[in-house]
Amino acid sequence: MNIIDIINKKRLGKELSYKELEYAFLGYLNKQHEDYQMSSLLMAIVINGMTLEETIDLTDIFIKSGDVYDLSSIDKNIVDKHSTGGVGDSTTLIVGPIVASCGLKMAKISGRGLGITGGTIDKLESIPNFDVKLTKREFLHNLKTVGFVDSSQTTNLVPLDKIIYNLRNNSGTTESLPLIVSSIMSKKIASGADIILIDIKVGKGALVKTKKDANLMSRWMKEIGVHYNKKVVTIITDMNTPLSNSIGNALEVEEAMQVLKGKDCKLYEVSKEISSILISLAKNISMEEAQEEVEKSIISGRAYNKFLEFVKSQKGDIKKLKIDANIKVIKSKYNGTLKEIDALKIGRLALKLGAGKINDRETIDYSAGVKLYKNIGDKVKKGEILATLYTNKNIKITEDDINCFEIN
Amino acid sequence: MNIIDIINKKRLGKELSYKELEYAFLGYLNKQHEDYQMSSLLMAIVINGMTLEETIDLTDIFIKSGDVYDLSSIDKNIVDKHSTGGVGDSTTLIVGPIVASCGLKMAKISGRGLGITGGTIDKLESIPNFDVKLTKREFLHNLKTVGFVDSSQTTNLVPLDKIIYNLRNNSGTTESLPLIVSSIMSKKIASGADIILIDIKVGKGALVKTKKDANLMSRWMKEIGVHYNKKVVTIITDMNTPLSNSIGNALEVEEAMQVLKGKDCKLYEVSKEISSILISLAKNISMEEAQEEVEKSIISGRAYNKFLEFVKSQKGDIKKLKIDANIKVIKSKYNGTLKEIDALKIGRLALKLGAGKINDRETIDYSAGVKLYKNIGDKVKKGEILATLYTNKNIKITEDDINCFEIN
Repeated sequence: MNIIDIINKKRLGKELSYKELEYAFLGYLNKQHEDYQMSSLLMAIVINGMTLEETIDLTDIFIKSGDVYDLSSIDKNIVDKHSTGGVGDSTTLIVGPIVASCGLKMAKISGRGLGITGGTIDKLESIPNFDVKLTKREFLHNLKTVGFVDSSQTTNLVPLDKIIYNLRNNSGTTESLPLIVSSIMSKKIASGADIILIDIKVGKGALVKTKKDANLMSRWMKEIGVHYNKKVVTIITDMNTPLSNSIGNALEVEEAMQVLKGKDCKLYEVSKEISSILISLAKNISMEEAQEEVEKSIISGRAYNKFLEFVKSQKGDIKKLKIDANIKVIKSKYNGTLKEIDALKIGRLALKLGAGKINDRETIDYSAGVKLYKNIGDKVKKGEILATLYTNKNIKITEDDINCFEIN
Repeated sequence: MNIIDIINKKRLGKELSYKELEYAFLGYLNKQHEDYQMSSLLMAIVINGMTLEETIDLTDIFIKSGDVYDLSSIDKNIVDKHSTGGVGDSTTLIVGPIVASCGLKMAKISGRGLGITGGTIDKLESIPNFDVKLTKREFLHNLKTVGFVDSSQTTNLVPLDKIIYNLRNNSGTTESLPLIVSSIMSKKIASGADIILIDIKVGKGALVKTKKDANLMSRWMKEIGVHYNKKVVTIITDMNTPLSNSIGNALEVEEAMQVLKGKDCKLYEVSKEISSILISLAKNISMEEAQEEVEKSIISGRAYNKFLEFVKSQKGDIKKLKIDANIKVIKSKYNGTLKEIDALKIGRLALKLGAGKINDRETIDYSAGVKLYKNIGDKVKKGEILATLYTNKNIKITEDDINCFEIN
């Protein structure tokens, strides 16, 4: 077997065997092949695709590249959730405390932001002293005692995904359903949960652009669940509009806390749906009963208290959270109705303000971001505030940057 | 402009502008982009293709990456020929001396072998002391005085092609018509000839597998000729069967010398056709008149003497040429007629014997190769010699290795 033959096979659109995928990918992890060989193979995969069979095989190869967590001694129904990424999506920070306060155990491995898409790890790091690098021992301890734990991908958990993710990001090979599916599912399977909910975001601000792709992704993820004897559920949610009114790391932590304190909004609705599904599956109760549990956890303050317990258990100091930036106010130029808030453009604006980074030389400004003051359908008067921008950068905000609102 | 956007554009099958191609390719030459970014772009080009416009642009970018030879002071009608590569194709060693002995000037930059395809530079290096690394000054001097010069690609002539060729070879991105066309044509244009003949080999042993691809390649090459105001002619010749009875470096030099001394065979026919076209175009005479000149150059011994003069002018010692290897005789197992000699299989066999190299760690054995004793259509008796194998390697020749002959 040699890597050039394997690349050529995929170049011609043929199906690769388990052994060929293993030789290529594990060989790359073991530095037997060059970066330029792997990126060429990845591009052939992106353009020519992979079958479900190949995707299951690749997921398996990803999983066995590192450790697999066995959480069966802690609980029989460990839950996990994952969002394929969006703008203003801080559901993890809300769902985790809710379900943990309802007696579930949620073991979560999160990632960092990518392009305009925020990452939970970055959001958590906006809380001063928050520790996202837990050892396996700490991870299991917190899961057992707090019921919700969130850590970044350690070197030993799917190490192959880490290097492939990085290479894809730098070689224009991110947009591939089979590669996205095996990247997500390998991490979910390896981190040990039994019930896995995937929130597939669709729309302008999302990695998945069409409903059709989302449906295919959903079907494949469930097939992988069957393969590993895991309960995999998917929901498909809109990402044409930012999910919440706060976009940016510390801003989103603040927003999540408000939702946990009872704020009613779109972010709460999605978080409630996700939490209810997980509770219903883990406790084997109806969705109505589960929804009632969620509502009670909020009203009683238990969910909010669980959030504080969670932050403390990972050494975070929530009182020191601050949004420490220059503020620029964006006002409406027209009278009318707010028809659209473009998630992609808002994401790009937040990125420009410093909420994310374009390359590894940059650093994230945790205070940076955008706060929205109007929702779709709202009446807007000329001169009314649409948004406030937070940044510590000395940058020029152009008309094009803030062209995110459609009013008529 | 950034490289990821350009990769993504080609990934989606869109046409790249001159500026984008320039940013990507010249940027790569200047080490602004990584190998894995270029190989990913190359794979997208291989799979999604390029338009004629893009191919002309890329050829231009290749040319301007280095020196361009201006030969107009030496002669108005400098000729050049190129074969897209085959098995047993030593036409250059025959055509060069013929046309030079007929008063033409042939300025040739040749390459090394690639896979099963032999390279003229390797063949020339089988002649002891032959110098293939001429300076520009030596190149021009020999062209003027001898009329035929053949040198390897210097660092300053299309340096971009050198690094791209190497990367393509190591990343499974060789089989692309636009990339092959721009690689060949940039070198032909940069090395300064006015009349360029391209011999497009088609068949099992060739880079181009189908007549359809060969026709498209021919059309595009001529279009590039028009763009640069050069006379570009193409011929399409069969490469299902080896072009000559000798395959291997020193063996092919020996064969070429026999043809120059008057041996009549397929190799002579193709060499005569190429020479006649070049002479007819350069002297503006009919093909019949040109063919007569070719025949005279052989019969008179002028072509052969020109070969000796050419070798001497590049410091080669033709008397020291030797085939110094163990010989294994392959005999027919059947009575019948020879229906096929598979060029691809013969090429692979010669490679295994040491006539070429698979990677840079190996060295070429100039004596290694295959000599064929029967032509297609010949009657063959059981026990008759079909071929002799030359090698210094201690290898096992299997039935599969010599399964190149179809007799029935």
